[in-house]
Amino acid sequence: MAILITGIGELTTNDEVLGTVHDAAIVVDGPVVAWAGPASRAPDADERVDVEGRAALPGWVDSHTHLVFAGDRTAEFEARMAGEPYSAGGIAVTVEATRAAGDAELAANLRWHVAEAARQGTTCLETKTGYGLTVADEARSARIAAKVVDEVTFLGAHVVPPGADAESYADLVCGEMLDAVASSVHWADVFCETGAFDEAQSERVLLAAKQRGLGLRVHGNQLGAGPGVRLAVRAGAASVDHCSHLSESDIEALAGSGTVATLLPACDLSTRQPLAPARRLLDAGAKIALATNANPGSSYTTSMNFCVATAVLQMGLSVEEAVRAATLGGAQALRRGDVGVIRPGARADLHVLAAKSRTDLAYRPGVPLTWQVWRKGKLVA
Amino acid sequence: MAILITGIGELTTNDEVLGTVHDAAIVVDGPVVAWAGPASRAPDADERVDVEGRAALPGWVDSHTHLVFAGDRTAEFEARMAGEPYSAGGIAVTVEATRAAGDAELAANLRWHVAEAARQGTTCLETKTGYGLTVADEARSARIAAKVVDEVTFLGAHVVPPGADAESYADLVCGEMLDAVASSVHWADVFCETGAFDEAQSERVLLAAKQRGLGLRVHGNQLGAGPGVRLAVRAGAASVDHCSHLSESDIEALAGSGTVATLLPACDLSTRQPLAPARRLLDAGAKIALATNANPGSSYTTSMNFCVATAVLQMGLSVEEAVRAATLGGAQALRRGDVGVIRPGARADLHVLAAKSRTDLAYRPGVPLTWQVWRKGKLVA
Ligand SMILES: [Zn+2]
Ligand SMILES: [Zn+2]
Repeated sequence: MAILITGIGELTTNDEVLGTVHDAAIVVDGPVVAWAGPASRAPDADERVDVEGRAALPGWVDSHTHLVFAGDRTAEFEARMAGEPYSAGGIAVTVEATRAAGDAELAANLRWHVAEAARQGTTCLETKTGYGLTVADEARSARIAAKVVDEVTFLGAHVVPPGADAESYADLVCGEMLDAVASSVHWADVFCETGAFDEAQSERVLLAAKQRGLGLRVHGNQLGAGPGVRLAVRAGAASVDHCSHLSESDIEALAGSGTVATLLPACDLSTRQPLAPARRLLDAGAKIALATNANPGSSYTTSMNFCVATAVLQMGLSVEEAVRAATLGGAQALRRGDVGVIRPGARADLHVLAAKSRTDLAYRPGVPLTWQVWRKGKLVA
Repeated sequence: MAILITGIGELTTNDEVLGTVHDAAIVVDGPVVAWAGPASRAPDADERVDVEGRAALPGWVDSHTHLVFAGDRTAEFEARMAGEPYSAGGIAVTVEATRAAGDAELAANLRWHVAEAARQGTTCLETKTGYGLTVADEARSARIAAKVVDEVTFLGAHVVPPGADAESYADLVCGEMLDAVASSVHWADVFCETGAFDEAQSERVLLAAKQRGLGLRVHGNQLGAGPGVRLAVRAGAASVDHCSHLSESDIEALAGSGTVATLLPACDLSTRQPLAPARRLLDAGAKIALATNANPGSSYTTSMNFCVATAVLQMGLSVEEAVRAATLGGAQALRRGDVGVIRPGARADLHVLAAKSRTDLAYRPGVPLTWQVWRKGKLVA
């Protein structure tokens, strides 16, 4: 049954031909877009929804989250912001709670966060393992995630578990652990940073994943300059994420590559790190994505709106550029052509705003602006 | 009829004795709080509402907005963020549209924004005139505002109107205009900044207002160093607002005064100005408030949550300090003892969060966190 969504005052399509359409309409047929264009030329449909002049855009594509977790780190965040010492903090807390949680608890927590994101316009979401750090716990996290979200990434190489040494843990990740998760995930990722995995260990993980047919992602250049970006580009990773500290040669390497620079402004702010150089990346010709990095340690938000507002107000992007990075950019970082765009054949994922223009996403920071969310042709919020 | 609100997991009262209460309850009797404390000791009431462990705090006190306006400046904002020239922008656009609007249109627009703010937890709101700039238009704005909001400020001295000279316009403000608005407002304010009113003109406006029994507020030190803060302190103003550029002597003057420094982080970000030195002010012993500065030109948000999150993530405040500045601080800036605090006799204005702790206001930036809003003892959202 086809549905005509009409009265769209401003439709951002991210399609090269359609561009931004004023007084637009979309026809949704089952889970996909059948037609998009000016309302005056819209074909008939079985049902009709009028959004009365509101703006619409592709649903957010949040290409970087860590939402298979249990436990609570509210007090740790509060202490960090107050400049107070906090002894029991860190990722180990989340790893311990995640291991101790039952499957149903982990799945319910993941579903709760995905639903919260959907209510804010996120219709395609990637999430990672990485709080299990044993073969069994990583495999379990991957299985649970695969039932809930569109894209699952194996991040066994998130951190070296307490008591282990990096070299032999990297061996485990490259062998038994990858074998145990490979059927549940499309992607593998590695935290290439001082204190986590060095360049050689990171490269081993990526090559082992590639041999098993997985796509590649890298956490890099979050806390300082480092080899993450150049490794990601060399390995042909779809995305290198964080990028808060980039050299000129990192930016050049990205600009000349198919690797998307995924920027995580909520994480930068929540850890009081510098915001990633979004403007310089775009000016150099690199592709960028915006994502939340939703996780209980360094960035506990599911709000893509907040990331877009921050990118405009503080990272020098125009509204159009920031919105594109949070939709099409996320899709590119996940190498998907069916989301982040509105055109015939694309997934019918649509975010209708309580506003006449997408500009309000940055002009009215913090104001809840989600009016309707369509995912796979169904109204989900 | 008394209502017992119980099951409050964390209650921020801002009361010196009560402090923050865990497992708390409140009894509301008509428009005021009759009792607040640990749930285990709560008295009986006619009706009972259980908020099931959620956090609650006094409703936001937004002590600085400019919401008596008409017109749309979305395209101007978008162009500014894209670094593009925009010929038709500026405050003159809002002045023209406001003058052209009917009373009903102005009142409806104001009510729409106040309702939007209330849905986000704001229960006491100040708004200003200042887009009329003629005796008749300023008087009309003041009358309309007085019917809608708790606190109205006369800001005839917002900007020198096109074609006028500052000196003779200041004469008009100090005489006929003040006479026309004085019965509708509690407060007078002046924009003491290069390009608006100089120190002598600003002081004249403040003295004329004081003679008519009005309380005083000052816009100062927004765009650069200047005399705004020292004038506000000298005149005994309740508040000096913006404070983005402060010298050491400005901070010392504030610390030794009864004048609240009202900080407007959404405005600082929306105009790409430096964030006000909140940490230095608190460390010096000054009183601070956080407010939105909601207006269509420089800060078009009604989100106090956003201001609180920004204050914690980027201005060095703890969650407790930021929440206090956005509740009790706003009340102090308006010299009100009945709002911004939960204690017997205070106005029953309560913001219940969709969270176990107020910490989520900064830990989860951008996520809509308002669960319930009570104003004068009635559920309004
Ligand atoms: Zn991450
Ligand atoms: Zn103002």
